[in-house]
Amino acid sequence: MGSNLARNLASREGNTVAIFNRSYEKTQTLLDEHPEAGFVPARTYQEFANSLQKPRTAIIMVKAGGPTDAVIDSLVEVFEPGDIIVDGGNAYFPDTIRREKAVRETGINFVGAGISGGEEGALTGPSIMPGGSDESWITLGPILKSIAAIAEGEPCVTHVGHDGAGHFVKMVHNGIEYADMQLIAEAYDLIRRGTGKSPAEIAEIFAEWNKGELESYLIEITAEVLRQVDASTGQPLVDVILDQAGAKGTGAWTVQTALSLGVPVSGIAEATFARSLSSHPEQRAVSRDLPGPEEEFSVEDTEAFIEDVRLALYASKIVAYSQGFDEIRAGAAEYGWNIDLGAISKIWRGGCIIRAQFLNRIADAYAETPDLPVLLTAPYFTEAITRAQAPWRRVVIAAAEAGIPAPAFSSSLSYYDGIRADRLPAALVQGQRDFFGAHTYKRVDKPGTFHTLWSGDRTEIEAEDTH
Amino acid sequence: MGSNLARNLASREGNTVAIFNRSYEKTQTLLDEHPEAGFVPARTYQEFANSLQKPRTAIIMVKAGGPTDAVIDSLVEVFEPGDIIVDGGNAYFPDTIRREKAVRETGINFVGAGISGGEEGALTGPSIMPGGSDESWITLGPILKSIAAIAEGEPCVTHVGHDGAGHFVKMVHNGIEYADMQLIAEAYDLIRRGTGKSPAEIAEIFAEWNKGELESYLIEITAEVLRQVDASTGQPLVDVILDQAGAKGTGAWTVQTALSLGVPVSGIAEATFARSLSSHPEQRAVSRDLPGPEEEFSVEDTEAFIEDVRLALYASKIVAYSQGFDEIRAGAAEYGWNIDLGAISKIWRGGCIIRAQFLNRIADAYAETPDLPVLLTAPYFTEAITRAQAPWRRVVIAAAEAGIPAPAFSSSLSYYDGIRADRLPAALVQGQRDFFGAHTYKRVDKPGTFHTLWSGDRTEIEAEDTH
Repeated sequence: MGSNLARNLASREGNTVAIFNRSYEKTQTLLDEHPEAGFVPARTYQEFANSLQKPRTAIIMVKAGGPTDAVIDSLVEVFEPGDIIVDGGNAYFPDTIRREKAVRETGINFVGAGISGGEEGALTGPSIMPGGSDESWITLGPILKSIAAIAEGEPCVTHVGHDGAGHFVKMVHNGIEYADMQLIAEAYDLIRRGTGKSPAEIAEIFAEWNKGELESYLIEITAEVLRQVDASTGQPLVDVILDQAGAKGTGAWTVQTALSLGVPVSGIAEATFARSLSSHPEQRAVSRDLPGPEEEFSVEDTEAFIEDVRLALYASKIVAYSQGFDEIRAGAAEYGWNIDLGAISKIWRGGCIIRAQFLNRIADAYAETPDLPVLLTAPYFTEAITRAQAPWRRVVIAAAEAGIPAPAFSSSLSYYDGIRADRLPAALVQGQRDFFGAHTYKRVDKPGTFHTLWSGDRTEIEAEDTH
Repeated sequence: MGSNLARNLASREGNTVAIFNRSYEKTQTLLDEHPEAGFVPARTYQEFANSLQKPRTAIIMVKAGGPTDAVIDSLVEVFEPGDIIVDGGNAYFPDTIRREKAVRETGINFVGAGISGGEEGALTGPSIMPGGSDESWITLGPILKSIAAIAEGEPCVTHVGHDGAGHFVKMVHNGIEYADMQLIAEAYDLIRRGTGKSPAEIAEIFAEWNKGELESYLIEITAEVLRQVDASTGQPLVDVILDQAGAKGTGAWTVQTALSLGVPVSGIAEATFARSLSSHPEQRAVSRDLPGPEEEFSVEDTEAFIEDVRLALYASKIVAYSQGFDEIRAGAAEYGWNIDLGAISKIWRGGCIIRAQFLNRIADAYAETPDLPVLLTAPYFTEAITRAQAPWRRVVIAAAEAGIPAPAFSSSLSYYDGIRADRLPAALVQGQRDFFGAHTYKRVDKPGTFHTLWSGDRTEIEAEDTH
C-alpha cells in the first residue's frame, strides 16, 4: 500500500517523492519497477530529510504499534520545527493522540491520517481522513487533495479535526463497513434460503440493486463475488469458501469506543459478533443438532420477498450509518474535535470501501441541519424508512420464523423501535437498580433524585444522585 | 458496604476486626453505633498493622482507581511478607493484574475479590469471588467462607484463580446481570403493551414465575418493584420513574473485554446499549414521530401469550448465561487462569444479584462435562430450549410486528440460530474481504489459504494467511 501511495503521489503534477525503507533493497526494487515515478531514493533518515523541501512532509506506511513509534522517533531526530510527519496506517486513535502530543513538543507536526481504499485505492485515489494541527493542513491539504479520490468534482479528503480525529473517523468508517457487510450477508442468506436461487442468480439481484438507492461499492463487489465460479470444483466460489469470517480489530475498536462513549452502535456490534461466532468451529460443531423450526422455509411470492429484503437492507443500513455518525459526534464532543459530519459523509463518497450514492443524502441532511441529533429523522431518511418499515418487519419476522440468523437486521429494527418509543421499560430497570443497589431514580413529574426505602417502610426519600 | 462487611466479619465466631478509615470520625461513628461488634479502632496505618495477628489480612473497601492504589501503597509500607491485602471493590481486572504483580514483589499477597450482594448482602452474606495466590487462599479461605452467603449448605465463595481472575468473574457476573434485567424489562413491556394488564397485575405474574424454573432474585424483586404504588400520585411507581437507565460501567467492560477475546456476548451488549439508548432524551424526543406499525398491538389469547413470554425469557436467559460462561472460559485461557466453571455457577447461587435456582442446572452441566464447549448443548438446556423455541420465535415475531423494542430477546434468538447453523453467510463476508483487501480465505475442501486475483484474471492462488 505504501508503494502504491508513493506512485500515486509521484504521478501528480509538481510532486517529487523521496523514498526510504528500512531495507534499501525494497527501495531499489521500487525504483527499478517504476522509473517513470522519478523517485528520489534515500539510504538513511538523514539523507531522506536532506532531500526534502521545507517544510518537509513524510508519510509513514508501516505496521501499527511499535514499528510506527520507531519510525517516528527516527524522523523526529532529523526533522525540524514546522516539518510534518504523517502516519497513514491504521493506528488506534488514542495512540495517535499520544503521539501527536509527544511530537508537538518538538515543534514538528504529527498527523494521523486514516486512508481507505485498499491497495488499489492507494494507487488510483483513496479516501483520506487526516487529523493533526491546522498548521499542518496548510501544507498537507494540497498534497492530499492531489492524490485523493474525486467524487462529484470534490477530492475525498478534509481536515477532520485535531490530533486523533482522523484515525477516530477512519475507525468508525471501518465499523460501519462491518455492519454494511453483515447486512448484505444476511440479505443474501435470506434470499438464498427463502427462494432457492443460486449464487449466480442472486448476483444478478445485487447487480440490479446497485442501479438504485443501494448503489455502493460493497453491493457491486457482492455481485462479483457471488458470480465467481471455483475453477477446481465448478461450484460457486461462495460455497467453497470456509464460512468463518476474520477480523483485524477495527470493528471491535469501534464498538469498544462506543461503549465508553455511551453510544448504542448495535448494528456494528452484532456484525462484529457475527464474525466471531462464525470463527468458533468447535462450538458450532456441537451446536448443529439444536432444534430449529419444524417447517421448511420457503417464500410464496419470490419477487415480493426479494423487494422486502432490499428495503430491509436499506432501512437497516440507514440505522447503521445513523449510529456510526452518533459515535463520531460523541467522540468529537469527548475529545474536543470540531468535526463537520457533512464533510465526513462527502469524503466517503469516493475511494473508500463504504463509498455509496447514499452518502450524498447524508451530506444533504447535515447541510440542512448541522446539529441534527439523529440522522434517521432527516426528512429523506424518514421517508425512506416509512416506505421500508413494513417490509423490514416482514423480513425480521420471516427470519425468526425460519430459524435464519439475521442479527443485524433484527437489532437495527429493535434500535429503531427503541429510539421512537414513548416510554421504555428502562424505568423498570432503574427501579430494580434502586431496589438492590440504592442507585436512585429520577421522576417524570418533578426534578430531583429519589430512592425508595425498599428494605424499610418503602417510603420515598430525596437522595443524592448516584446514577 | 465496607462497614456492613466489617460487621458481618465481626459477628462470626473467632473473628476480631480492626477498623481504619482515612477520617477517624467515621471509625468512631461505627464504634458508637455497633459496640456489639468489638471493633478494634486504628488511627494510623501503623496502628492498624500492629493490631493484627500474623499473617495479617486487610480488606480494602474504597473507590476503584486512584484511592485504591493509595491505600495499597500505605498498607504495603506497614505490612510484612506473607500478609494479605484484599481489594473488595469493583476494580477493573487489568488493574488487579497490575496491582497483584507489583505487590507480589514485596512478598505480600494481593487479592482482588469481587463481592456481590449490595449493602444488605455485605451484612448478611454476599457471594465472593477472590483471585490471588494459592498461599493467600489458605488464610483467606476460612475467613471468607465465614461471611459468605450459604447456598444448599455450601458457602458462596471459591478461589476463582490467580491475580485478576476474581475481578474478571465479578465483571462477567455484572454483565450477565445487565442481560437478565433487560430481558425481564422486555418481558414486562411486551405483556403490558400486549395485554393491557397493570403493573400490579404483572407483578403477580412475576411472583408466579418465581415459583418455577425462572426462580431468581431478579424476578422476585421485579414483582416488588411493579407492585409498588407511588405515594404522591397514587400511580404505579414504575410509571413515575423516568425511563432512563443508568450504568456504572461493568456492563460496558464485560462487552469490551469480550470483543478483545473474540467472544460474542450479544445479549449483554444489547442490554448495555438499551440502557444508553434510553439515556439520550434529546435523541428520543426528536424520534418520537418516526412511523411504527399501523395496527394496534393486542394479543388474542392472553394466557398463552404470557406463557410464550415466560418461555422466551427463559430461553434468552439461557443464551445470556451461555455467552457469559464462554467469556469466562476465554478469559481463563487468555490470562492463564484455571477456573472451574461449575464452581463459579455454585457460588452465584446465593448472595449475589443473579442468584437463581437455574444455576444448579449450570453446575450440573459442568459437573457432567467440565470442558463443555457450549452451555446450550447440555441436555437440560437443550431440552428447555426445545420446549421454549417455538414460543420464543412467536414472541420475537410479535415484538417486530407490534413495533415494541425487544433487542435482547431478538439478539439471543439470532445468536441461537447462528450457532446452530450448518452454513453461515460469513463465507460471503470472507469473499468480500478477499475482494477489496486481499485478506484471503480458507476452503471447505482442502487445507491452505487462498486468494482470488479479483483485479487480474480471477484465478485462485495459494497465499500467505493474512486473516
